Amino acid sequence: MPIVTIRAVEGRTVEQKRKLAKAITEAVVRDFEAKPEAVTINFFDMPRENVAKAGTLFIDQ
Amino acid sequence: MPIVTIRAVEGRTVEQKRKLAKAITEAVVRDFEAKPEAVTINFFDMPRENVAKAGTLFIDQ
Amino acid sequence: MPIVTIRAVEGRTVEQKRKLAKAITEAVVRDFEAKPEAVTINFFDMPRENVAKAGTLFIDQ
Amino acid sequence: MPIVTIRAVEGRTVEQKRKLAKAITEAVVRDFEAKPEAVTINFFDMPRENVAKAGTLFIDQ
Amino acid sequence: MPIVTIRAVEGRTVEQKRKLAKAITEAVVRDFEAKPEAVTINFFDMPRENVAKAGTLFIDQ
Amino acid sequence: MPIVTIRAVEGRTVEQKRKLAKAITEAVVRDFEAKPEAVTINFFDMPRENVAKAGTLFIDQ
Repeated sequence: MPIVTIRAVEGRTVEQKRKLAKAITEAVVRDFEAKPEAVTINFFDMPRENVAKAGTLFIDQ
Repeated sequence: MPIVTIRAVEGRTVEQKRKLAKAITEAVVRDFEAKPEAVTINFFDMPRENVAKAGTLFIDQ
Repeated sequence: MPIVTIRAVEGRTVEQKRKLAKAITEAVVRDFEAKPEAVTINFFDMPRENVAKAGTLFIDQ
Repeated sequence: MPIVTIRAVEGRTVEQKRKLAKAITEAVVRDFEAKPEAVTINFFDMPRENVAKAGTLFIDQ
Repeated sequence: MPIVTIRAVEGRTVEQKRKLAKAITEAVVRDFEAKPEAVTINFFDMPRENVAKAGTLFIDQ
Repeated sequence: MPIVTIRAVEGRTVEQKRKLAKAITEAVVRDFEAKPEAVTINFFDMPRENVAKAGTLFIDQ
């Protein structure tokens, strides 16, 4: 703990995840006074057919 | 917000997700007085080996 | 399964949750061909200080 | 309910999931006084590029 | 990682959570070959008005 | 989407959440190329009796 979970539409590269994991961890350490090794991050790559906004799937928008 | 997450055993078609996303969004807008564009829906397709009930995986039932 | 989770800003009444739980369950049964007794719904009432959009907490918007 | 969700790095076998689902269900039934058929378990297999600790992706550790 | 999340209707005592956290951690260590200190457990105590089965809130059953 | 969820032990102040929500949103916008208004953040304040590591509740550590 803290545990940070990011759900985003699939397509982000490993390099993008690498940078974001680093940036979020630094922010959690600074603003929530956590130790770096206590911060776990989980990404979920969501297929566009599995996400909807305003009742419409992303594949239909 | 609101954010609605549906975990279901994999196998549902895009058309089934399309209909359900529309129906749930309409229900949230009506019953929770939310704006349609504020409603996000996420589906998770669960492999049958990743779900258990009463201690038994779905692939074994 | 299916398991439906709804995160919404706190303040909805029991009657609102009652109606929405019924409506969502009916939609899941119809569109995902699930048995009613297999559908579980969980609401999370989110305090306004625990939700942010565009980087701003709801209590500050 | 209860609903138990396990996120673990991918690579566990079906047999490992089978054993763990059984063991966790028995523990929930015993310690939380739940009926076995009320206990649902969901596994999420996390790719190593989707998990970070201390700001570093597991694929980089 | 692994991260285990248990959602259960509120009312369980600290002693019940203490026993279950211990038992689940032992099972994860044994069956998923994880180190004990890598296993995190989160309980969510769900109010009975926030859970529904078969379209009916638990407070109405 | 993206949706970022942070589970942390309770006790963080509103000001801490305010700063972290801003920092994480900026990181997601920059690294995941998302629009600010598309980024939703949810905090869950976990009671110390509801979190365990290595099989021991935080209230017992």
